Amino acid sequence: MSLIVQKYGGTSVGSTERIKNVARRVIATQAEGHSVIAVVSAMAGVTDNLLKLASEVSSNPTKREMDVLLATGEQTTIALLAMAIDELGGNAVSLTGAQAGIATDGDHTKARIKNISPKEVHRLLDDGNIVIIAGFQGQAPDGRISTLGRGGSDLSAIAMASAVGADRCQILTDVDGVYTCDPRVVPNARKIDEISYDEMLEMASSGSKVMQSRSVEFAKKFGVLFEVCSSLNTNPGTVVMEEKPHMEAVVIRGVSLERNQAKVRVGNVPDQPGFASRIFRAIADAGIIIDMIVQNTSEDGVTDISFTLNSNELAQAKEVLEQAVGDFAEGTRVTLEEGVARVSAVGIGMRSHSGVAADMCTSLADSNINIKMISTSEIKTAVIVDEADVEEAARVVHDGFGLGDKPILAES
Amino acid sequence: MSLIVQKYGGTSVGSTERIKNVARRVIATQAEGHSVIAVVSAMAGVTDNLLKLASEVSSNPTKREMDVLLATGEQTTIALLAMAIDELGGNAVSLTGAQAGIATDGDHTKARIKNISPKEVHRLLDDGNIVIIAGFQGQAPDGRISTLGRGGSDLSAIAMASAVGADRCQILTDVDGVYTCDPRVVPNARKIDEISYDEMLEMASSGSKVMQSRSVEFAKKFGVLFEVCSSLNTNPGTVVMEEKPHMEAVVIRGVSLERNQAKVRVGNVPDQPGFASRIFRAIADAGIIIDMIVQNTSEDGVTDISFTLNSNELAQAKEVLEQAVGDFAEGTRVTLEEGVARVSAVGIGMRSHSGVAADMCTSLADSNINIKMISTSEIKTAVIVDEADVEEAARVVHDGFGLGDKPILAES
Repeated sequence: MSLIVQKYGGTSVGSTERIKNVARRVIATQAEGHSVIAVVSAMAGVTDNLLKLASEVSSNPTKREMDVLLATGEQTTIALLAMAIDELGGNAVSLTGAQAGIATDGDHTKARIKNISPKEVHRLLDDGNIVIIAGFQGQAPDGRISTLGRGGSDLSAIAMASAVGADRCQILTDVDGVYTCDPRVVPNARKIDEISYDEMLEMASSGSKVMQSRSVEFAKKFGVLFEVCSSLNTNPGTVVMEEKPHMEAVVIRGVSLERNQAKVRVGNVPDQPGFASRIFRAIADAGIIIDMIVQNTSEDGVTDISFTLNSNELAQAKEVLEQAVGDFAEGTRVTLEEGVARVSAVGIGMRSHSGVAADMCTSLADSNINIKMISTSEIKTAVIVDEADVEEAARVVHDGFGLGDKPILAES
Repeated sequence: MSLIVQKYGGTSVGSTERIKNVARRVIATQAEGHSVIAVVSAMAGVTDNLLKLASEVSSNPTKREMDVLLATGEQTTIALLAMAIDELGGNAVSLTGAQAGIATDGDHTKARIKNISPKEVHRLLDDGNIVIIAGFQGQAPDGRISTLGRGGSDLSAIAMASAVGADRCQILTDVDGVYTCDPRVVPNARKIDEISYDEMLEMASSGSKVMQSRSVEFAKKFGVLFEVCSSLNTNPGTVVMEEKPHMEAVVIRGVSLERNQAKVRVGNVPDQPGFASRIFRAIADAGIIIDMIVQNTSEDGVTDISFTLNSNELAQAKEVLEQAVGDFAEGTRVTLEEGVARVSAVGIGMRSHSGVAADMCTSLADSNINIKMISTSEIKTAVIVDEADVEEAARVVHDGFGLGDKPILAES
């Protein structure tokens, strides 16, 4: 008998009708001879309602109390799911994060899991129960309720799977798995059968928002194999796992796109130690996350530094940068460009296969799409293009690597 | 510095605007130099919504999971109230029932408080915090969430006041206190300043639904003096306390009325041991609560037994009774009368003052109101009248005892 952890997100439990569907699926999984742990999120919309209530009583709610408030969302779902399972003749027991033994640090609203003591979970499973656990939440060292922040329920499921030594961990969602690209943009995008943690991380950070990076990072760190699949059908999903030798045979696993990017260029920066540091320190101190840093070769003792960031943070970035570079040199100036987007090709096969950047540029050039910046990492090649070009760019890159048909094999 | 426990019910915290009012009041109480514990209910309407969700997933929800579900109601309120207090510059920490150390038995949805360990509450108070506690809930011996059933938040407040040795316990509600009669029925009803536990219990069981009997019984058992007062103003309320010698000077403390009663008469019951027992056993086994039992004097070897009950339970009572008396004797039969109501005069002064029943009958007779049954206990005299007469009956009895002006003194 194997032990399966299933995680159901907010959309999958978004109504009592859907909760009943989840109950049926959980019971069916148990009937196949498995022990089942279901980790659930708050019903879709519930968290927004709670945030609205909080905003009505406080302009800046204390994080500790925000956790007490938000944790009611998952607690409602676990009770309803356990009732629904019972109604169908199953045996279920619900546990809050604290009751399930999920211990976190005290960093409220974005706590980290420190330890899981699954004794109670094992005891309930041994008695034949389906164990329903509230995702997203745990218990801080002082006994208070904590929450894990965005994507927290995925993290709860993966961490619990690790703690109980589960044979399988399924992240059930409203998509069939991870796709080679967003099917709304690239109609011939295919579902990926297997993807390595590193590829999944690069896809996530490049705009494929199936899961938050931190859950994937946790899974990688503790070697938890998991499957992203649909809560609406039983088709095989995408298995996210440690890299296997055969995986490198595929050069590009997928293409992702991120919209609402902006490009910042600081021109005529003195090419001397310390100036770049002052730029990036100012940006970091303001809590702004940047991406794709490019520094041109120096000429006449000055250089250009460019980077991208989310458009939402552009106004703040402009303010802190203009203050920071004010005393650099007379000609130093900040120029901004909005309305750009990023297209990234991701694949661990890139390590052993050259020419990815060249192939990507060729595909874009053939479609007359101008590239504004290029950046590469070990398993990703990313370009910045006009926002207006991003969908066409994704399609031609996706087709250029043959992702719509079947994976290109590096050795073929 | 004194320690005050304040309990705010569902109406008092029924909106975020009202929660902000409660926050102001709690802060004002602390500013007067007191340590404050606030015990709160779920926002009005929230529990009904949760029950509706439960009914959508299950025809017969497990009680254990119902408690997990319902407990989210108070948890939402404690977080919002703590945030609101913080927003106004106060320091508040919220605690669930379990976190506040409220240990109950495992009788889910109607658990009894077994013990309170207020160590954490004291620690937080000592640090200058206002402590916000979720009423209605506790922790069962197996670590699960339990709830206390109807009126549970009052019970939480009174039990907590006892456990922490509070100097005062205030039950804040949407009325000014306990009245000599329902002011909607008797316009000249007055607020009672002091009432004994026993009188309060008789008033509650006779239709004055300010509080559930069990909370008053708990307060009596542990000698917790409490005040029922308004959350909308700071007028003195009604103090509920141990009987004091001067209290007996008032013959009648108040008049209460209970509508929707029905009268059951079992006629021609053989006047032999065992028959009455079979009637009441059948009723009790069906879980039906009855009141005002009257047995007439035996005549010709048969007797009549009458009692009252809530109209809602009449159909079920009829069924079980007809089955139970079927083999009594040929002439035994059950007759039912709906559309009656009860008027009760309550006062500990009755013990030392005779003639209360006579005075009551005279008042009713003068108004031409027919009495269908009379029943007396040590501190209560109750009559059953036609439902159509109940308001007039309450008014004339209330006036007859001079309750609209000032209490009649037994010795005057």
